[in-house]
Amino acid sequence: MTDTQANAGIHMANGFDPSSGVELDPASAALLERRDRVLGPSYRLFYREPVAIESAQGVWLRGLDGREYLDAYNNVPAIGHSHPAVTAAVSAQLAKLNTHTRYLAEPIVSYSERLLAKFPDALDRVTYACTGSEAIDLAIRTARYQTGKQGFIISEHAYHGTTVAAAGLSPSLGPNNPLGEHVVTIPSIDTARTPADEVAPKLLASVEAAIAQLNESGAGVAGVILDSILSSDGVQSDPTGFLAPVVDAVHRAGGLYIADEVQPGFGRTGTWWGFERHGIVPDLVILGKPMGNGVPISALVGSAAAQEAFGSQVRYFNTFGGNPVSIAAATAVLDVIERDGLVDHAASVGGELLAGLRELGSRFDSVIDVRGAGLFLAVEFGADDEERTPDADLATRVVNGMREEGILISASGPAAAALKIRPPLPFTSANGAQLLETLERVLTREAR
Amino acid sequence: MTDTQANAGIHMANGFDPSSGVELDPASAALLERRDRVLGPSYRLFYREPVAIESAQGVWLRGLDGREYLDAYNNVPAIGHSHPAVTAAVSAQLAKLNTHTRYLAEPIVSYSERLLAKFPDALDRVTYACTGSEAIDLAIRTARYQTGKQGFIISEHAYHGTTVAAAGLSPSLGPNNPLGEHVVTIPSIDTARTPADEVAPKLLASVEAAIAQLNESGAGVAGVILDSILSSDGVQSDPTGFLAPVVDAVHRAGGLYIADEVQPGFGRTGTWWGFERHGIVPDLVILGKPMGNGVPISALVGSAAAQEAFGSQVRYFNTFGGNPVSIAAATAVLDVIERDGLVDHAASVGGELLAGLRELGSRFDSVIDVRGAGLFLAVEFGADDEERTPDADLATRVVNGMREEGILISASGPAAAALKIRPPLPFTSANGAQLLETLERVLTREAR
Repeated sequence: MTDTQANAGIHMANGFDPSSGVELDPASAALLERRDRVLGPSYRLFYREPVAIESAQGVWLRGLDGREYLDAYNNVPAIGHSHPAVTAAVSAQLAKLNTHTRYLAEPIVSYSERLLAKFPDALDRVTYACTGSEAIDLAIRTARYQTGKQGFIISEHAYHGTTVAAAGLSPSLGPNNPLGEHVVTIPSIDTARTPADEVAPKLLASVEAAIAQLNESGAGVAGVILDSILSSDGVQSDPTGFLAPVVDAVHRAGGLYIADEVQPGFGRTGTWWGFERHGIVPDLVILGKPMGNGVPISALVGSAAAQEAFGSQVRYFNTFGGNPVSIAAATAVLDVIERDGLVDHAASVGGELLAGLRELGSRFDSVIDVRGAGLFLAVEFGADDEERTPDADLATRVVNGMREEGILISASGPAAAALKIRPPLPFTSANGAQLLETLERVLTREAR
Repeated sequence: MTDTQANAGIHMANGFDPSSGVELDPASAALLERRDRVLGPSYRLFYREPVAIESAQGVWLRGLDGREYLDAYNNVPAIGHSHPAVTAAVSAQLAKLNTHTRYLAEPIVSYSERLLAKFPDALDRVTYACTGSEAIDLAIRTARYQTGKQGFIISEHAYHGTTVAAAGLSPSLGPNNPLGEHVVTIPSIDTARTPADEVAPKLLASVEAAIAQLNESGAGVAGVILDSILSSDGVQSDPTGFLAPVVDAVHRAGGLYIADEVQPGFGRTGTWWGFERHGIVPDLVILGKPMGNGVPISALVGSAAAQEAFGSQVRYFNTFGGNPVSIAAATAVLDVIERDGLVDHAASVGGELLAGLRELGSRFDSVIDVRGAGLFLAVEFGADDEERTPDADLATRVVNGMREEGILISASGPAAAALKIRPPLPFTSANGAQLLETLERVLTREAR
């Protein structure tokens, strides 16, 4: 049984299967045994043979075994692992003040002004939480109060978080995880199998059918929620603009357009926000993962109008949300992205890497698509048949082959047949060249 | 209109009312104006005249106005504001590694072993999240998967968090915040107006009625969720043991007993956990606020058995949950609590302060009850009539009078008529004496 099959019930790409009989090194095996005795049964590890990590710098992780791993997976340490600017800012703030937002304090105001300046003018208010799950959950509450409606439209393989309500918007968590009430899915956008000029019309038709369904049920449409690069749907990036008709459709239905920017946001896709690539202005935007480079902070950004009903009727207080230490980390992240030009860097290095992956892919029949934007790229494997049947086994073998060669990536998509390549933003052309060279070697071995 | 009335629609004790016309100092007024232009409309400040904070050390906050405020309110910086042990631990870890739990790493395992050693043997697994809201939300999912039932029983003025599901368990958020489906409330325990020997039987009868209601509706009982010191119900501490019959009742109904320890946990009540005072062993325990002294971390602790169904059927991954930096902060908190004997300290200084408040209260007719455990104390105001009608206006005046005299506390309870005194744990006898002396002065002025 492959890892993919072992984890099919819970739909987890690249999960470690404890029953696989893989022999771990003694230190890892001992640690795993201690770990299993204390952590809850819902924890899962990555890889056929889990990676034990001791430290990290920039784009490099150092294993407990002393090996160096090139990180082409982690999007949380967006400005690089253990970045000194974050360490300095957090240390200074921790030594000074770390309270909550019910006292007046300056740093949260300054940061908010800088953050909102990165958004279209209409998006002029921010509310802080600690995780993407909390922010999407707050968006659900906000949209329902604002519209007076209950329904949400999401993608078929969406992942939006782990709270009861966010998991209810996350069909990618698998068949044992029920969708929320009044949640309707639309088919995953599949750009590898859809002619470019049909992507937008097909998506719009799906959304309109879902709107009709919610209106008929009486729930109405509170919002459409889409990750602006459709990460868990396999990274669907092009043609740019395909999300635009959805905004008008949901507005006509009286609902809000909610952009989940937890993965594409903060420069990842070569623009500050993933929605920019589609030329749209959402009503609400969810920020998370890279926002504090790993220090927990997330946010809901949106127009004051979209947040007014919730704000006036219900107080929202998140004890740690917007605390000065998390704000200090987030401020350092903005500083470094701006100072080092990481948005443009992601665009240019990502563009090079995309070209390299396309060239490499053209030499392997099993590579059926290479796509992505900035430093969020996907390489999809499939059979040489008419449906280009997804090949998840090959993706799993390649992910584990890369891990054995010291490069960390993962797999994604409804069939888990696409490599997910998503390094910290300071990833260089040389790092990209190493990735390409290693991938060629692994593909030559695995893509039989 | 008083602050309490202005905020009645959203049930917030001690909220700032921007329409009150209070004149702020120019620096605060300018900051407030900038703040209102960027933060979402759900933000609320404390006090008739908000406090602007610049820095904090130990039990002292320094205002932007240069004033020192004695902190007798904040339970998050449990080991004291800006504690150097947390700063050192977090700084060192930030410079080394901050990833997630899908790689093997040692610190989370060591911390978990130490944390679980503080619990009864039956509670042997921990799952990490970032906030109390996330942990209670996870408890909801966990209990529903485990029991196959949907219903929850909570207290009438409970507060358990801010996610859709947690807010659905938080009637203290006010009438505009709807309860969740299959959520049944029981009347707030009111120890000030209930003879000691009637508290437990009355509570048990309420819980049994709620169980019957949930069984009749077909939802069944997934769990009873109670804050072990009933913070938002006005701090209900005695007689110890009154929660014990509830555990048996919910078990007979096939549900789980879920202890919300976000406020009482980590020594606050003079024992490690609030549930210890009642001689009970919960099935699931929620930890939060003080766990990382303000660095976001929370947890669900429980028996492996209670978590098994959820863990085997659905993966749970919280990106920042259990990250090495939050674990470093939590480890430093455990170190300091143990090294400085803060649990016993909370018991002894809290006991002194309780005695002092009782003596003071005996001299004012409007003080109808003084209660609490460790460093979580309440002083309730009421009229000299048969019902001892709660006097929220007096509580508000006293809270604001104390703030003017440089001591920060707040109000609590269904009627917001009880002072909530809940300082960082290193609060000393001398701090307590200052609080008592100041409170006497304010009461002499306000308790007309």
